[in-house]
Amino acid sequence: MATDTVPPSDTSDTSDPSDASNRRGDGYVEPTVDVPALTELLDGRYAEVRRTVRAQLVEHAGVLVDAEEMTRPEFRDRVRDVVVEMAATGQTAMGFPTEYGGSGDIGASLAAFETLALGDLSVLVKVGVQFGLFGGAVLQLGTARHHERYLADIVSGRLMGCFAMTETGHGSNVQALGTVATYDADTGEFVVQSTRPDAWKDYIGNAAAHGEMAAVFAQLVVGGESKGVHAFLVPIRVDGQPAPGVTIEDDGLKMGLNGVDNGRLWFDDVRVPREALLNRFADVTEDGVYVSDIDNANKRFFTMLGTLVQGRVCVGGAAINASKVAITIATRYALQRRQFEATGTEEELLLDYGLHQRRLLPLLARTYAMHVAQEVVAAQVHGVFSGTLDPDADPDLARRELESRAAGTKALGTWHATRTIQECREACGGAGYLAENRFAALKADTDVFTTFEGDNHVLLQLVAKGLLTAYSSEFEEMDQLGMVRFVAGLAVETVIEKTSVHKLLERIKDALPGGDGTWDQDAGLLDPDYQLAMYRFREEHTIAGVARRLKRGIDSGLNPGTVFSQVQDHVIAAARAHLERLVLEAFVEKVATLPDGDNKVALNLLVDLHALGGIEADRAWFMEHGRLTSQRSKAISREVSSLCRKIRPLARDLVDGLAVPEAMLRAPELIGAERGSIA
Amino acid sequence: MATDTVPPSDTSDTSDPSDASNRRGDGYVEPTVDVPALTELLDGRYAEVRRTVRAQLVEHAGVLVDAEEMTRPEFRDRVRDVVVEMAATGQTAMGFPTEYGGSGDIGASLAAFETLALGDLSVLVKVGVQFGLFGGAVLQLGTARHHERYLADIVSGRLMGCFAMTETGHGSNVQALGTVATYDADTGEFVVQSTRPDAWKDYIGNAAAHGEMAAVFAQLVVGGESKGVHAFLVPIRVDGQPAPGVTIEDDGLKMGLNGVDNGRLWFDDVRVPREALLNRFADVTEDGVYVSDIDNANKRFFTMLGTLVQGRVCVGGAAINASKVAITIATRYALQRRQFEATGTEEELLLDYGLHQRRLLPLLARTYAMHVAQEVVAAQVHGVFSGTLDPDADPDLARRELESRAAGTKALGTWHATRTIQECREACGGAGYLAENRFAALKADTDVFTTFEGDNHVLLQLVAKGLLTAYSSEFEEMDQLGMVRFVAGLAVETVIEKTSVHKLLERIKDALPGGDGTWDQDAGLLDPDYQLAMYRFREEHTIAGVARRLKRGIDSGLNPGTVFSQVQDHVIAAARAHLERLVLEAFVEKVATLPDGDNKVALNLLVDLHALGGIEADRAWFMEHGRLTSQRSKAISREVSSLCRKIRPLARDLVDGLAVPEAMLRAPELIGAERGSIA
Repeated sequence: MATDTVPPSDTSDTSDPSDASNRRGDGYVEPTVDVPALTELLDGRYAEVRRTVRAQLVEHAGVLVDAEEMTRPEFRDRVRDVVVEMAATGQTAMGFPTEYGGSGDIGASLAAFETLALGDLSVLVKVGVQFGLFGGAVLQLGTARHHERYLADIVSGRLMGCFAMTETGHGSNVQALGTVATYDADTGEFVVQSTRPDAWKDYIGNAAAHGEMAAVFAQLVVGGESKGVHAFLVPIRVDGQPAPGVTIEDDGLKMGLNGVDNGRLWFDDVRVPREALLNRFADVTEDGVYVSDIDNANKRFFTMLGTLVQGRVCVGGAAINASKVAITIATRYALQRRQFEATGTEEELLLDYGLHQRRLLPLLARTYAMHVAQEVVAAQVHGVFSGTLDPDADPDLARRELESRAAGTKALGTWHATRTIQECREACGGAGYLAENRFAALKADTDVFTTFEGDNHVLLQLVAKGLLTAYSSEFEEMDQLGMVRFVAGLAVETVIEKTSVHKLLERIKDALPGGDGTWDQDAGLLDPDYQLAMYRFREEHTIAGVARRLKRGIDSGLNPGTVFSQVQDHVIAAARAHLERLVLEAFVEKVATLPDGDNKVALNLLVDLHALGGIEADRAWFMEHGRLTSQRSKAISREVSSLCRKIRPLARDLVDGLAVPEAMLRAPELIGAERGSIA
Repeated sequence: MATDTVPPSDTSDTSDPSDASNRRGDGYVEPTVDVPALTELLDGRYAEVRRTVRAQLVEHAGVLVDAEEMTRPEFRDRVRDVVVEMAATGQTAMGFPTEYGGSGDIGASLAAFETLALGDLSVLVKVGVQFGLFGGAVLQLGTARHHERYLADIVSGRLMGCFAMTETGHGSNVQALGTVATYDADTGEFVVQSTRPDAWKDYIGNAAAHGEMAAVFAQLVVGGESKGVHAFLVPIRVDGQPAPGVTIEDDGLKMGLNGVDNGRLWFDDVRVPREALLNRFADVTEDGVYVSDIDNANKRFFTMLGTLVQGRVCVGGAAINASKVAITIATRYALQRRQFEATGTEEELLLDYGLHQRRLLPLLARTYAMHVAQEVVAAQVHGVFSGTLDPDADPDLARRELESRAAGTKALGTWHATRTIQECREACGGAGYLAENRFAALKADTDVFTTFEGDNHVLLQLVAKGLLTAYSSEFEEMDQLGMVRFVAGLAVETVIEKTSVHKLLERIKDALPGGDGTWDQDAGLLDPDYQLAMYRFREEHTIAGVARRLKRGIDSGLNPGTVFSQVQDHVIAAARAHLERLVLEAFVEKVATLPDGDNKVALNLLVDLHALGGIEADRAWFMEHGRLTSQRSKAISREVSSLCRKIRPLARDLVDGLAVPEAMLRAPELIGAERGSIA
């Protein structure tokens, strides 16, 4: 379909279904979006929870202004107060058991948390630190003795705590931590000690001001033997002063999130009772015997870490929701701001410029896609942690799938936020630079999302590792070096391409509309089967390519570190390809289940824009791998532009469907008059 | 050249020229970089000026901390004080005539300004507002009566002023401003009036606190007739209070640059004497007759604006220098931070990971390239404004070329800064998020660079307009609509491709190594002629494509606004292609002039990485246009990785060559021990 055959988009912001001009030459009829129904669809199973949180955000909207006007100490206290007030409504602890003040609904807790990201993100992160990280560690790694003693106070916010894992010398490589907890059988205590100059705990939320206790991750030493990383509950503050042996330093001003009191912790001969060990997966008996149901130390470590997967899911979801704020402001601005006369009569609305459509609308489509992808991973968390999985399902496999998907969705979601917020800021010009217009906080606060709860690049390598597992189940518990060595020993040639045509790919090719030889048939561009086949082809091909390259490198006598270093960008590409396929699949499936109607038509435009936009962005790869001719590649670009023009008149409704409360947008001069508030 | 045939890079940070391991199999010998000579080369003609400014920055390094610790009003005053202190050294006004306290050297003033960007950027922008924008308007648009009365006070900082052009309703579209200055012949005064609700001046630096006077851009009305936008000197503050009829509002907290007091200005019946008109290009006689040497109103307007081109050149240069700070910190961090064991003995340095090399080193290469490109445009400014052009050169043409290049370099330089700072921040993990490590300020402060002094997308359209001029000199003074109409009337078919092979392209093709049919010959990848031919091909093809699309759209009966909207992304692509060619050409030429030696070898690696990295990034386009086979495209990607490995051992020297003073890096824990300070 050539550009010139598509009628120009309607430039008015309203659409009248009875207006014949909505009918397009190629049979496309511009849909009339039912905004409340769209919101209902996105809100899904937890619509009530999300509405409650949105109402709470509006109630506390003043905190957005406080973030700008208060001093740092004042704002930290203000954020704590808001968090405690919110805690009183129950919305921050829905994932905890009912006996401790929770709702026992993990899915609800995820929905509540990610919705909080429409508001001030210091509040969000403080909630995450207190209830997700600290509370989550006590709940997931502790046992009844910890639950009974602490959970009710944690849930209410009476006991504020820290999650002290990260050390300055070791961010993502947790197994190399330098804090040690040595069991002293004589006193029945653990002695917690920071052992290396670079082994202080850093960037720990709640540490600088409010935390009284920390879940401290340390190398456990029993009887002179190291047992790997375990978590301990260590009081860090008594009556507002650092506990004996604990040194606390403020991390000081940060790029953003300055309502969260991040700090550093050092431990020098800090003694805690034996019961301070969070002993769900391993314990030390009074007389100093280490016991665990999990024999393999590596497996034990990853099992512990695995219980903390919710943190990643939360960050990914929060990032996606923060993107909604940015895309809503920028789209509404583009629908009221005029600049330059193009037609000679009146200045044009920004969103009537093709370039502006190209800048914003694919991000809008991707925001929808990521929302749906997040819904899938959140449902997986709920299934795994609530024990509501299909009884026939393999729980280990489900957990592994969840970990991979959580890591990947977090990476994609947070990068999406960084990109969307930046593009939307620029699309609002100088006005986007003023704090009252939200972008300053959105940008500064979300920036760290790409690196906390696991650096995105490290997470994608984790995802890739899981994918290579498909070549052998033995990959599972290997470290990076082990993986390289293992791959070198694999008979990978038997499963991957020998010539330019890959065996595994044949079945994908067969799935394409019209089968082999029809890659260049225009008709298929908007066919979800074609779109998915392209994504699957890329995924399979890149994963096989990594395995092949690893083997070839080792075979040629290079050392494994060098091989991995050289293959690393392929590893990342393979993980991304896998994740993009999952996102598209989730989005296609979600929309496919809808009853026919205008909302489905509108959402299918977003699916197409997302799918083809993704192919367009990586069209070089598809051409290099013989899956796109240059003609078809150009046709895809034209189709993307055409889809943008079709979505243009629906843009306001589509951002309204995201249901960001007006009070969270602020930016009165950017967004123009209200059309009725959403809360 | 396949990846596997390249020996792995040396992983140590030092290189010993006598060490045989520096000799590589393919004849490449790892160079020993002479860092001081490299700095001398980059500093160029204005080495002394740059050294002075670097020393001044170190002297005032405390302002980087003040930015974090002071309240907003305190910090604004602090920044003003630093600016006035710097002014006393003469470094901030080198472009002004000597009789008013300047050095009469425009090139020196640009070098001094851009070097300031290594330090606090509020200081930089305050300098830009006072001496560049306000002082520049008085100097360039005023005449002796203004110069004699004001320049000495402006140069010393005794008279602080504003450049009041931008209005909230109109950012980049200056011709549509809503402030009006009506000549009242009875009193011999201009009456300045904000006429529309959206016609307040906004984001005006120096307005909220320190400015006493403003160069106000307003529609001049004489005898009831509008004469277009002119500039007037209007007192806005008397004894610290707003002048009668002037309303001033603070823009409040911004994302960054909070040491600059941006504000809003409204004018209500503000009377200024006839002499307040900056009358270099047009004047009003006492009895109310409008006189100008330039007949055409449009041309007059663009001539006025043209004199202000230095602002754009300054912003571009500042952005490039801010990038140097970011890439230096991230590279040095990557050379001391270890993470994960890849080889099983010790954790690897971050920069030994292929992915990390891929993330940072192309940005390092591009920082060098942009520095050189900036040097070229700065020299053009110097030539045009100092009257030192070749006497045979056409001054109008030189001015037009300068305007285009200034606009384009500003766009590329500021986008480069945004991208580099973000990637470097992420590459430093959580530590990059702490304010003391510089990224918070770098990111927040530079963010607005992409949209101020002309939105980058608007600037690229300006560049494209200039390029289309090649199809006819009549394009010159046309507005967007005029351009579209004009193109529709052009016999463009006579100059652009009729088939898939373009006539204009033939000569480029001829310039390729080996001539026609050798596009796929591996040998040429590192040949600058090949690289430049690729860039030129893209440029010619995209420009011709825009002209063709404009014509086709008009011919098919669409309205010009719609056509332009649909072609806009091609317009942007054409401008980018043009600019990328200019940048590469400047970089290639600069390095080619060097005497043979190790520094030249090192810089040629950067040229190759920059050139091939650029082709790789846009390889889809080259494949779509038949200028890259998929095989060769993959070969380029391998070569880019190989170049990264070659540059890896030189990375520390190459960032040291950028000569960012240690005190400007801060980040003591990120950058490790000093190797001797640079100031």
